[in-house]
Amino acid sequence: MTDNIKLADYLFTRLVQLGVGSIFGVPGDYNLRLLDYVVPAGLHWVGNCNELNAAYAADGYSRINGLSALITTFGVGELSAANGIAGAYAERSPVVHIVGTPPRPLQDSRALMHHTFADGEYGRFAAMSTHITVAQTKLVDAQTAPDKIDWILQQALIHSRPVYLELPDDMPGVLVSSANLKTPLSVPKIPSPAHEPQVLSRILERVYSAKQPVILVDGESRALGILDQLDTLIKATNWPTFVPVFGKGLVNESYDNVYGLYAAGFGDELAKKYFESADLILTFGPHYSDTNTYFWTTVPKDALAITFKDSTIQIESETYRDISPASVLSQLLQSLDSSQIINPTGPPKQVVTTDDINDTDIIAQKNFFRLVNPIFGEGDIILTETGTAAYGGRTFKLPPKARLFGAITWLSIGFMLPCTLGAALAKREQNAATGASNQTTLIIGDGSLQMTAQEISVMIKEKLNILIIIINNEGYTIERVIHGRKEKYNDVPFWRHTQALSYFGADEEHVKENTWTAKTCGELQEILRNDRVHSGQGVRILEVMMDREDVQEGPLLYMLNKQKAEEAAAAGN
Amino acid sequence: MTDNIKLADYLFTRLVQLGVGSIFGVPGDYNLRLLDYVVPAGLHWVGNCNELNAAYAADGYSRINGLSALITTFGVGELSAANGIAGAYAERSPVVHIVGTPPRPLQDSRALMHHTFADGEYGRFAAMSTHITVAQTKLVDAQTAPDKIDWILQQALIHSRPVYLELPDDMPGVLVSSANLKTPLSVPKIPSPAHEPQVLSRILERVYSAKQPVILVDGESRALGILDQLDTLIKATNWPTFVPVFGKGLVNESYDNVYGLYAAGFGDELAKKYFESADLILTFGPHYSDTNTYFWTTVPKDALAITFKDSTIQIESETYRDISPASVLSQLLQSLDSSQIINPTGPPKQVVTTDDINDTDIIAQKNFFRLVNPIFGEGDIILTETGTAAYGGRTFKLPPKARLFGAITWLSIGFMLPCTLGAALAKREQNAATGASNQTTLIIGDGSLQMTAQEISVMIKEKLNILIIIINNEGYTIERVIHGRKEKYNDVPFWRHTQALSYFGADEEHVKENTWTAKTCGELQEILRNDRVHSGQGVRILEVMMDREDVQEGPLLYMLNKQKAEEAAAAGN
Repeated sequence: MTDNIKLADYLFTRLVQLGVGSIFGVPGDYNLRLLDYVVPAGLHWVGNCNELNAAYAADGYSRINGLSALITTFGVGELSAANGIAGAYAERSPVVHIVGTPPRPLQDSRALMHHTFADGEYGRFAAMSTHITVAQTKLVDAQTAPDKIDWILQQALIHSRPVYLELPDDMPGVLVSSANLKTPLSVPKIPSPAHEPQVLSRILERVYSAKQPVILVDGESRALGILDQLDTLIKATNWPTFVPVFGKGLVNESYDNVYGLYAAGFGDELAKKYFESADLILTFGPHYSDTNTYFWTTVPKDALAITFKDSTIQIESETYRDISPASVLSQLLQSLDSSQIINPTGPPKQVVTTDDINDTDIIAQKNFFRLVNPIFGEGDIILTETGTAAYGGRTFKLPPKARLFGAITWLSIGFMLPCTLGAALAKREQNAATGASNQTTLIIGDGSLQMTAQEISVMIKEKLNILIIIINNEGYTIERVIHGRKEKYNDVPFWRHTQALSYFGADEEHVKENTWTAKTCGELQEILRNDRVHSGQGVRILEVMMDREDVQEGPLLYMLNKQKAEEAAAAGN
Repeated sequence: MTDNIKLADYLFTRLVQLGVGSIFGVPGDYNLRLLDYVVPAGLHWVGNCNELNAAYAADGYSRINGLSALITTFGVGELSAANGIAGAYAERSPVVHIVGTPPRPLQDSRALMHHTFADGEYGRFAAMSTHITVAQTKLVDAQTAPDKIDWILQQALIHSRPVYLELPDDMPGVLVSSANLKTPLSVPKIPSPAHEPQVLSRILERVYSAKQPVILVDGESRALGILDQLDTLIKATNWPTFVPVFGKGLVNESYDNVYGLYAAGFGDELAKKYFESADLILTFGPHYSDTNTYFWTTVPKDALAITFKDSTIQIESETYRDISPASVLSQLLQSLDSSQIINPTGPPKQVVTTDDINDTDIIAQKNFFRLVNPIFGEGDIILTETGTAAYGGRTFKLPPKARLFGAITWLSIGFMLPCTLGAALAKREQNAATGASNQTTLIIGDGSLQMTAQEISVMIKEKLNILIIIINNEGYTIERVIHGRKEKYNDVPFWRHTQALSYFGADEEHVKENTWTAKTCGELQEILRNDRVHSGQGVRILEVMMDREDVQEGPLLYMLNKQKAEEAAAAGN
């Protein structure tokens, strides 16, 4: 390693060191010189159809890989990506957003360049980024650039949220010191505070005295980096384990003591009874948005909970700050004496069958997800777009190591399709070392699909093994349920979904054998038995026709019935 | 008119009073209750495929109609629209961005709702909007809402830029005073300053003494509301009149003294010679970005210019502030004594013919635009997307009242396709009163098209008469020209463009008769003679195949040749 290195090489070397294999984005005249360094650095360049799609894809990649990078151009590119970056912030996905900006001489002279408001102001888009990224920096000189890069990458990892990096177009080739590169970047540890032993002993005391304990694994556990430890805890205790929506896919549902989703009053009655009479709820990575908690009905009471979150542990109403959840959990696992803990009998598990479904039945929400579930294999990724797909996805029983992406908090429709591209690519890169192969399945409504459909062409270009199941119910059914169930504003334009693969450039031979439509449960079951559906190559499309107002039991049906009752009352008056 | 009115009705009544006929946007759970009022108010709801497309469409509508409105939902929706709003700011298009936000009780209690970062913070997206809109307001009580609405609509009109209006989901039905509605909203006039007579006499003095005068009409003249006056001035003086890129389509190119684009060293040599030896350049609505001025080579020297811009008039190096350009121009027209002004002989006009083109020629940039030009009719709208299309569009000779949209400053690729939807819709609404009919033609490269292609389905749904000409040169040719002409990052995925109409839902019969591909000039000419191409119904698609590195003479060819020379030099070393 020489003493000096070009700035772009420094940045990309760091990304490679941190396990990034692909970069997402769109070329633009202020980032082209940076793009020259991507492939030589050993990185794969994914040219997306637009920047929002690129940001969504980077988010998906990051959720599987642990870090991702996105390159856009100043103004036009970065602002198109804003919603995707915000979603990564809301749901804790570390995305390094690298923005190619005008060369320093133009910025310094306040030149009235394109991609600005022609007023000499170059700071406004960076100012906007402060609201949706956890750290921001601008590389403007050789001396400070390496440390700034290291710092911003650490911020992304520490907070598990997106960061914003401005890189003027005349900087990629500038020489910087390569000295830092000899030391791999690591995330600084939280020092053990004096009260750590006390926290541990309080936890152990509660653990040993618990008569009806529960483990609750929420989605921010991923950001805390404690998933392996949690797996050990779940096995060691054998305690009934539940997940909120965000936690689904982070624990092994094949264990007898793992129940999957806890939905309080919107789920299994016996699970609710057990949960609500628990005397200890070990809670990890909580994320208490309305949509992740069934309007906060699944949030444990303070008195019952011990909650591990970012650099704090809360025991009953007391919050211990500046403490590492990972460190305390690690000590807990080391200290745990299995003979002192209870081996409780959890609630009976719900058994899902499809015996009641007839071949001639139309495909309804209540039977569709049960029929699809068996095609998922170990390590697969399943993505369920906001709307009826996400509600249905909550009921899946997941194979070991399968990941599920659902609707958590940001709920930006259209997200899941490019997210699928990113997640599938990250998984393929992970599998390259082992030779394993996995399927990625996206279930998405027709309304959401229209937001970002063009990214199917990038999936095809990347030769990814992706099954896209399109729920065709002629519009935004989830919005119909919330309000305006008969209003035209909840309709979407008519598309011929079975032509997508051909339009988006797949081989004509492939198209013929990898596009299906199902109207009845019998048709669906026959299609699902096809090898090309459940374990095929390339991108496949399965369109399933459903009723415009068909929703599963739970919050959606509750809202729909409420709306109908209000209409009836109004009509009666 | 009653004394009270529901807030949403107040807002939409004001928009209707100001000539808005359609609203763009996407439904979301925080704006559904607002959407209930759109159609009853006499407005047409255009449900777009996504919010960026909706913002682009609203911008296009506004450029034809003078004002437009866009409705998105909190966070996810509004951020997706950000780039489109910023473009409207940069290029002076008044768009009222109405954001449906969570109900006041949820905001006041800092509830951890979806579409937030689940941290109780509700202000960050509004804070972001301050950088890309000219005014912002939040409707939170009945007492202040009507005045806030009036104020923000006036700001949009005064500045001809976008504004941001937050409307909580529990506000649309709140009763507010309707008293204001009796008085139509008007834009406050700039009071005549004491120095106005002096300014006028200085201008007249220069006008009467000019020996080689020029009129230069730039694009911000539209925002100044002086287009009709300029038409009078151009006819009254008969002076040679030029436009920068942004001004193209704002003056009547059928007049003998109107020359179209002035491109300095990148255009006609004799025009440059005349322009550079002028002793007076009456300049209106200047917009001096690099891309609108051929790197500032078309900007008149201070000593020669009298420049009319927002509330200032500049004469030589002296700037008079707080003065109305429209008022001064109006007085100038009234005072002007035609017998005292020179009737100069302008440079000879360039004659464009197609005689040198053979049927077997491949379609090259240098012949394509000449061949297409004759299909445009009076009052038509022609949109040329950033890239080779926009450069070619600058050479069109436009029929009277035709409008041309080109690449000015924001240059966000993908913009022109949804913009076409908005512009065509506004034109159709204008024509409804007269029974006139017009065509809208979009010329767009395949790279740009992929950004926003799904909006073709909304054009189809809206039954608009739009011809889309797709330049298929396998990627981002304009980026290839700037840098990396052989790099893969400037390629795009392969699409079958002739399948677009079918995929996006047009009638199968229509599809067959309204999709064409041309590879040679002969094929192109034959297709262009087809009635369905130049004056057909509905959306039609014409794909033209061009070479990956084919660009017109001018800045693009200059950059390409420079790149090739650098490569050759590098290879020689």
